[in-house]
Amino acid sequence: MQAPGELKSVGQRVARLNGPDIVTGRIQYADDIQLPGMLYGRILRSPHGHARIRKIDTSRAKKLPGVVDVVCGLDVPDLSIFECKEVCYQGQKVAAVAAVDPDIAEDALALIKVDYDVLPAVVDPVDAMDPDAPEAVLGAPTEEVKDPGGRRLRNVTAYNVLEEGDVERGFADADAVVEAEYQVPFFNQTYMEPNAATARVEADGRLIVWAAGQGTFTKREGLAEALNIPEGRIRVIMTETGGSFGGKNRINIEAHTALLAMRTGRPVRLTINRGEDFRDSRPGPGCWVRLKTGARKDGTVTAVEGRIVWDGGVTGSGGAANRLLGPYRIPNFRLEGMAVRTNKPGPGAYRAPGGPQTALARESNLDMVAHKLGIDPLEIRLKNGLGKGDQPLLQHDWLKDTIRKTAETAGWGRRELQPNQGMGIAVGDWHNASGPTNAFVTMSADGSVALVTGQVDITGLHTVMAQVVAEEMGVPVEMVTVRLGDTDTVPYASLSAGSKAAYSAGTAAREAGREAREQLLRLAAEKLEAAVDDLVITNRRVHIVGSPDHAIGLGELAAEAIESSGAVNGRCVLSSVPTYPSYSVNVATVEVDPGTGQVRLLDLVAGQDVGRALNPLLVEGQMQGGAIQSIGFGLMEGYRYDEKGRMLNPNLLDYAIPTALDVPNIQTVMVEDPCEHGPYGGKGVGEPPIIPGGAAVANAIYSAVGARVRELPMTPERVVAALQEAGKGG
Amino acid sequence: MQAPGELKSVGQRVARLNGPDIVTGRIQYADDIQLPGMLYGRILRSPHGHARIRKIDTSRAKKLPGVVDVVCGLDVPDLSIFECKEVCYQGQKVAAVAAVDPDIAEDALALIKVDYDVLPAVVDPVDAMDPDAPEAVLGAPTEEVKDPGGRRLRNVTAYNVLEEGDVERGFADADAVVEAEYQVPFFNQTYMEPNAATARVEADGRLIVWAAGQGTFTKREGLAEALNIPEGRIRVIMTETGGSFGGKNRINIEAHTALLAMRTGRPVRLTINRGEDFRDSRPGPGCWVRLKTGARKDGTVTAVEGRIVWDGGVTGSGGAANRLLGPYRIPNFRLEGMAVRTNKPGPGAYRAPGGPQTALARESNLDMVAHKLGIDPLEIRLKNGLGKGDQPLLQHDWLKDTIRKTAETAGWGRRELQPNQGMGIAVGDWHNASGPTNAFVTMSADGSVALVTGQVDITGLHTVMAQVVAEEMGVPVEMVTVRLGDTDTVPYASLSAGSKAAYSAGTAAREAGREAREQLLRLAAEKLEAAVDDLVITNRRVHIVGSPDHAIGLGELAAEAIESSGAVNGRCVLSSVPTYPSYSVNVATVEVDPGTGQVRLLDLVAGQDVGRALNPLLVEGQMQGGAIQSIGFGLMEGYRYDEKGRMLNPNLLDYAIPTALDVPNIQTVMVEDPCEHGPYGGKGVGEPPIIPGGAAVANAIYSAVGARVRELPMTPERVVAALQEAGKGG
Repeated sequence: MQAPGELKSVGQRVARLNGPDIVTGRIQYADDIQLPGMLYGRILRSPHGHARIRKIDTSRAKKLPGVVDVVCGLDVPDLSIFECKEVCYQGQKVAAVAAVDPDIAEDALALIKVDYDVLPAVVDPVDAMDPDAPEAVLGAPTEEVKDPGGRRLRNVTAYNVLEEGDVERGFADADAVVEAEYQVPFFNQTYMEPNAATARVEADGRLIVWAAGQGTFTKREGLAEALNIPEGRIRVIMTETGGSFGGKNRINIEAHTALLAMRTGRPVRLTINRGEDFRDSRPGPGCWVRLKTGARKDGTVTAVEGRIVWDGGVTGSGGAANRLLGPYRIPNFRLEGMAVRTNKPGPGAYRAPGGPQTALARESNLDMVAHKLGIDPLEIRLKNGLGKGDQPLLQHDWLKDTIRKTAETAGWGRRELQPNQGMGIAVGDWHNASGPTNAFVTMSADGSVALVTGQVDITGLHTVMAQVVAEEMGVPVEMVTVRLGDTDTVPYASLSAGSKAAYSAGTAAREAGREAREQLLRLAAEKLEAAVDDLVITNRRVHIVGSPDHAIGLGELAAEAIESSGAVNGRCVLSSVPTYPSYSVNVATVEVDPGTGQVRLLDLVAGQDVGRALNPLLVEGQMQGGAIQSIGFGLMEGYRYDEKGRMLNPNLLDYAIPTALDVPNIQTVMVEDPCEHGPYGGKGVGEPPIIPGGAAVANAIYSAVGARVRELPMTPERVVAALQEAGKGG
Repeated sequence: MQAPGELKSVGQRVARLNGPDIVTGRIQYADDIQLPGMLYGRILRSPHGHARIRKIDTSRAKKLPGVVDVVCGLDVPDLSIFECKEVCYQGQKVAAVAAVDPDIAEDALALIKVDYDVLPAVVDPVDAMDPDAPEAVLGAPTEEVKDPGGRRLRNVTAYNVLEEGDVERGFADADAVVEAEYQVPFFNQTYMEPNAATARVEADGRLIVWAAGQGTFTKREGLAEALNIPEGRIRVIMTETGGSFGGKNRINIEAHTALLAMRTGRPVRLTINRGEDFRDSRPGPGCWVRLKTGARKDGTVTAVEGRIVWDGGVTGSGGAANRLLGPYRIPNFRLEGMAVRTNKPGPGAYRAPGGPQTALARESNLDMVAHKLGIDPLEIRLKNGLGKGDQPLLQHDWLKDTIRKTAETAGWGRRELQPNQGMGIAVGDWHNASGPTNAFVTMSADGSVALVTGQVDITGLHTVMAQVVAEEMGVPVEMVTVRLGDTDTVPYASLSAGSKAAYSAGTAAREAGREAREQLLRLAAEKLEAAVDDLVITNRRVHIVGSPDHAIGLGELAAEAIESSGAVNGRCVLSSVPTYPSYSVNVATVEVDPGTGQVRLLDLVAGQDVGRALNPLLVEGQMQGGAIQSIGFGLMEGYRYDEKGRMLNPNLLDYAIPTALDVPNIQTVMVEDPCEHGPYGGKGVGEPPIIPGGAAVANAIYSAVGARVRELPMTPERVVAALQEAGKGG
């Protein structure tokens, strides 16, 4: 593993390469595609949370001048991209229109007559389980789970138990036991760019779709499945993604756009608005948690027991309980994981899926048990945290190092606090993924390097890949251009998700760069009459070690290769790289107004175990961005529904996310202890930052005023209620 | 070498893959690029054949509302893409305008005031050599060549002598000697799509240019040189090329378009019209030839002597004499090759550059000597033609086989002709080139294959590459898509020119396909517990030889590879492949009206030595297209200038090219005798077809009416003149 000083490009604070194009608006988004003869699509959506459809009449809409096509589920009985019998959440797709103008398409929606028979809706996951609750989706299959009274629960779609050791003995061994319930609502990725797609059918019948997201090939898979056509007949070109955070992992309106293009024979563009995106995208799931934690006097956790009920929306997805364990040694545990169906959109991935929700319960409980035992919340985490030797691949004390350095930076235990101020600490863990990816490089006769990958850039990935290639090939990063291949031009690459993009594709870039470097050195060895091992690259020239004047330029070598052995080029197509856990630690300092319940976040110190910071500027950006999202999650955000399943805040006025005024100084602490794999020992860094923030704020509020808020977001009203519950209310 | 029966895709008549997109207008040409905020460029050109520029005043043009930029050579003194001191041909670029609308740009041209001092021009290459001729470019360097009187010739830019044996003895040994002069004018590629380009500067200053042509990287080299910026700062994306035939090998208005984009900061599109394209592109060069040929009674050629003067236009390019030798054994020869500067555009490549012009002289002379000796013109070619063993790489009798089969198909010596009808034969030779190229393939989980190459498709190349890859990977060609990479995405590839594209890139496709096939077979061997050598691919499945049921699908293997060893992919980046000669033979049958001189081409049999016809449909298309161009060259085409250097026929009304009514039945004869290299033994087939047609028609006219036309095009007037010269005039 190179020492940082030996690296020239990797580890540098290189600004995102396409940054200027993004901030000047020159970058191309899916909504920027303009094709001759293009039509504009719009979607008709259910206004109800739950209803039976008696009839759909599109005849008037079809007659509106400028309307080219109107399609609903009745027209495409083999596809399931529209509902024509029952709608199960507000915003669900019922029909689509293509018109010569977006306003005409909008007008046409109003002319489609849908006759609804409104049904009872259920939106709270706990309510949904009630044996007397209405079915969220009529007749849909459920798991057989019973309540203590032996009555079958409603709407349960998943049930599993995660168990190890002897929980009863564990609690018997405990000197302190705490138990609490937590609730988290749906929360939205609130990417800047709402979902958009443009589609065109080529003369040979092949479909081209331009869309944004995290995986070109994943989009193609989704389209092939939704439209029932082979993948090879579809080309997906991914445009710049204006934010996704997991939300655009799958298809949304892509298949509908493509269907309109296929039916009309004309290109179609379909861009949804913010309200549609709120109601019919794939937000982070809410959940209800009951969690019991026991520990001995010295802080050793002896047992954890509980249940998590995931709000699975219309799809009833989810059900995992494992994240309630966190990065701790827990000898005895029993956790029930469940998912229920409700009348909401099916949730999806949102940055570190399941991480922030479970961290709230786990880290709050740990905090409570520490306070009950009179132990420093920092110490209880060090005491129980996983470290060297606890897992086969874990040869480092990454977690404890990160806890210590973050706490030290935050002045934990040293900082002087005013009345009603408090500090809270919380920990997050993530195991970065890896998956199929690729990188191809070539060098031109001026020594510039072109890099192509199938891996979508969502966090500055391409900049990092350019740094890696520059490092391997001995050129300045400014001489590397990066292009995203599409499904017609590069091998399969998996989603840029799970903190794997820089980890996997960075490895591919390194291997591709190495192969190209070897070609350069072999050619140079011939020219300089030297052994390859005696050669080094400095200043875009290859020279013999110790003889900087006995050199040949990289461009000259590249030009020579074109004519002799074939252009310098490197390739790496890989399926996966061994992966590692990584950790994030937040220390929040808050001031609470006990009268109003207003919480002011004074500062947040975000620490993270990053392996090696391949680009500290971008890593810090990830850490700060994630921390800000976790503040929104903890203090401000959340879907609100009425009892009929109508969303009450489907806009960015009523669904508040942090603005610059809400965000305190976020200090970052990068802990660099390279891991054994990954490029230069770097780990995935995208997901850990969002995990612990909300929990750290909850713990800080408790530290400030002795009140425990267990339902998100921690609004002033809930803080006041918690103060009253703690007997401290005004 | 596989027998044709063993091949499933190669050798099939597969229709051009992008044909439907081309004929329905969905394909994207350079003029179709539409960018936000785009400006339209126009070029101000010299109206004079030769003039000094006293002054350029762009101030009024700049003031026209809608004009964003006006630029002339005075504004960019470091670049030489505009003339600001002396114009040396009509149409030469003097200034450029960018405006919000193409009509405003056009209007602005009229407001640019250029003060010219008209100079004498010279347009005929023989006149240009006269010691008293004016200089075509004032003060430009010339070669020192003297006339028999010892006076230095004017405007000569190249002079070389190609000599072998003893020419005097050779002519002394001859029983018949003929000597004649020939003249060929400039002739235009008349591609359907005039030159066009669109350019944009990215926020980071990198330039993107969309343009048509035969080589993406060659365009980039041209732009880098013209604009004096590094190649790595330029991305060239090649749009579909609406014909080129060598004419778009280099840049034309690309640098001017890019300059306007760089100066204005806005995208710019610049499309020229047919008149501009005639006057200021790179047509095929004209020439003047004097050629003397001697042969013995048995037809054995003993000596060739002569001079060719290439009309090098403003650039004075050219000068080679070697093609006057042709595919014949010539023991003694002395050939002077020259080039002269004239006041015309600098000529460039036009399909088999130099081939048709030299074939006219060579094949006419051979015909004359045959007639003089009373030998069949067919036999004299068989007698002297190169064959097996005559050259190191020549292990076949390709030429003679092609002569025999073509003549037989045409009914040579058997066909009954009416009065004033005649048959002529002529031969062309080409040595197909090879150069840097590449191919990358990958397979998706549905078994479809994506192929990427840097090699531009000008003749159905991509279809042929798809066939080759389909053959290697065992999939139907319909499952292969082909994409052209750009300078940011693939390694260097050379021009698709010199009949090398299918030869070189076809080889690359084969190697890439083979690598992918090997990956598939290795995986299948594991799955089927068999040795790789025992496996075959049939019907998109791999099975053990003789056990078609013990099989696994290619898609399944591809899906497995994505998750285990990395997506199936193959790559070939090569510099060149050993190359071979190839031959074309035309037999033309004409009827001449001795009164009017009108020549009617009754039919043309075009034979060609193709190695293996990788796609007979496309090969026949090449043969027929080339033959039609050679008919135009022989009978109709040619630039005409007045004495001041003003082109008299810069449009498709006055510059006639063959229409469907002018084209007889063109029967093709593909001679398939695979060569040792090249994909499946195929050779480059693009250039040979255009070479012999004009000469075959000239020989046919002689055969019909005993008159020899030696100046092209062979218009009725010239036929009448030749009849009078032969004493047969009416």
